[in-house]
Amino acid sequence: MKSKIIAITTILISNIAWSAEPVKPIQPANDINLALMELGKKLYFDPRLSKSGFISCNSCHNLSMGGTDNLPTSIGHAWHKGPINAPTVLNSSFNIAQFWDGRAKDLKEQAGGPIANPGEMASTHELAINVISSIPGYVSEFKLVFDNGNINTENITSAIAEFEKTLVTPGSRFDQWLLGDKNAISEKELAGYQLFKNSGCVGCHNGEALGGTSFQKMGLIKKYQTSNPAIGRAAVSNNDSEEYFFKVPTLRNIELTYPYFHDGAVDSLEKAVNVMGEIQLGREFSQEQTEQIVAFLKTLTGEQPSFDLPQLPPSVPSTPKPEPYK
Amino acid sequence: MKSKIIAITTILISNIAWSAEPVKPIQPANDINLALMELGKKLYFDPRLSKSGFISCNSCHNLSMGGTDNLPTSIGHAWHKGPINAPTVLNSSFNIAQFWDGRAKDLKEQAGGPIANPGEMASTHELAINVISSIPGYVSEFKLVFDNGNINTENITSAIAEFEKTLVTPGSRFDQWLLGDKNAISEKELAGYQLFKNSGCVGCHNGEALGGTSFQKMGLIKKYQTSNPAIGRAAVSNNDSEEYFFKVPTLRNIELTYPYFHDGAVDSLEKAVNVMGEIQLGREFSQEQTEQIVAFLKTLTGEQPSFDLPQLPPSVPSTPKPEPYK
Repeated sequence: MKSKIIAITTILISNIAWSAEPVKPIQPANDINLALMELGKKLYFDPRLSKSGFISCNSCHNLSMGGTDNLPTSIGHAWHKGPINAPTVLNSSFNIAQFWDGRAKDLKEQAGGPIANPGEMASTHELAINVISSIPGYVSEFKLVFDNGNINTENITSAIAEFEKTLVTPGSRFDQWLLGDKNAISEKELAGYQLFKNSGCVGCHNGEALGGTSFQKMGLIKKYQTSNPAIGRAAVSNNDSEEYFFKVPTLRNIELTYPYFHDGAVDSLEKAVNVMGEIQLGREFSQEQTEQIVAFLKTLTGEQPSFDLPQLPPSVPSTPKPEPYK
Repeated sequence: MKSKIIAITTILISNIAWSAEPVKPIQPANDINLALMELGKKLYFDPRLSKSGFISCNSCHNLSMGGTDNLPTSIGHAWHKGPINAPTVLNSSFNIAQFWDGRAKDLKEQAGGPIANPGEMASTHELAINVISSIPGYVSEFKLVFDNGNINTENITSAIAEFEKTLVTPGSRFDQWLLGDKNAISEKELAGYQLFKNSGCVGCHNGEALGGTSFQKMGLIKKYQTSNPAIGRAAVSNNDSEEYFFKVPTLRNIELTYPYFHDGAVDSLEKAVNVMGEIQLGREFSQEQTEQIVAFLKTLTGEQPSFDLPQLPPSVPSTPKPEPYK
């Protein structure tokens, strides 16, 4: 009885501990439709959603590499050089909106974008539907999963979004600390977290994903120097006051999602922290402070999504052919 | 006791049954060094072996798609159009040599080829070694796996080859039939197999992989019409008499490994069977015969390799950067 009370007390203290923090532990995915997720996983890995038959969602949001491609900007159809750094798909369900400029309201809307973007997968929704509809294995799976059995953009993107909802990364050392294991992070890492809070980083990088909760100006205090022409949120809202406002990126798994910023111009966490201090907070971190913050950031790597590589149902002779060179 | 005798007798009969056949069941992989295989799996999925940081072994030998890219010829660095159809990696350990022209004697030698091929991964062995050597997670894993701990081409390709040795596909319906389950295939499929044997297909497509055991002339009876300039084995041996000799491709998982032939020019199994009949055997199959053979071929799809998508150790700032556009 006594140990039970102690256990409950510990849980209460733990909950109080992190409920007072501006950062919350990542919750494992729940309320998942498993059949829909499995279908979405196949589609996520299926390069036949691209015109070339070569590029899948996983090409640029590679789940072996923190849900990114680790390139400054992505490679698209015909080796097109993308305009912006591919954000990680990990924990993207926590974002208030999708894309750096938030032009898609949710994962489902986002999933339709790259398929029809000439510089990314370069297909069309019509072609993608024709391809998927020609594949017997998909036809039966769509019938199984959807009441209407329809193969359309609505259902294709719903399935991909359902899979993406599962791509959360709980269990990081920092979350273990938030949940009450005071030995899960070192003193240096904890000092980094305190500094992260006290110096204002957490003003934007907060919530479960330490980001994704707001749009903020890149270069709040001092202009960010970049050759990248993206103007961010203003391109969506047509509101000049939102120029260079970008969705605050998540810091979860940040050790895996290099290079950093919307232009992918920075390779090291040290430099990223220093640039942020300078242009967002108007302060210069000492080397020790930078090391502490970076040490903290590296505690944010969670359990990566773990699943069998999916097997894709084969095309048949009537399936529209990939056209990499047209 | 009686049931035991019956069981043993059944096994003996089964063994006799298939030991008399020119096709053998695929044996599951054995004698595998697990740590070496796990390292090889990471390398197989790691696009940092390419100059662009975008192309991995799995890009063209996609294990979600029968170990191929399902393209006539592969897409390489800077969207280079490859010269020849990517053969499946599945069951490639059964091949007498690797590549269509057999220019690599084994999987290990093969694995080094694409890394340094300017039209494929476009890296160099030196660069690949520098990249892998810069990544702490790989450094420790190479130390764990190899006595000498060296990160060199020898060890990189050994690891990839060890993983590829595991990419066998036992358990197809046809193998179940070979192993004694007479209900595993239909009458039509069995008729297809008989025809496959009686009409001479099995002369080249034999052994565990139904292929991979010899080089044969493409167009033995009648010239194969193609715009593909590959001359096959003659390019390796400098022996004109081997012009258009290619390694006989495996028929295992043939339903998944379209399009067919070294030029990837044929999309349907029906057409592939008819072309083979015409140019290799000098005969024309009736529609019924074609359907029977195709039905048989579709029984050769085995259990696909099943494993967790690997997680790759992250680069660090000193890691040589991908250069997609140089």
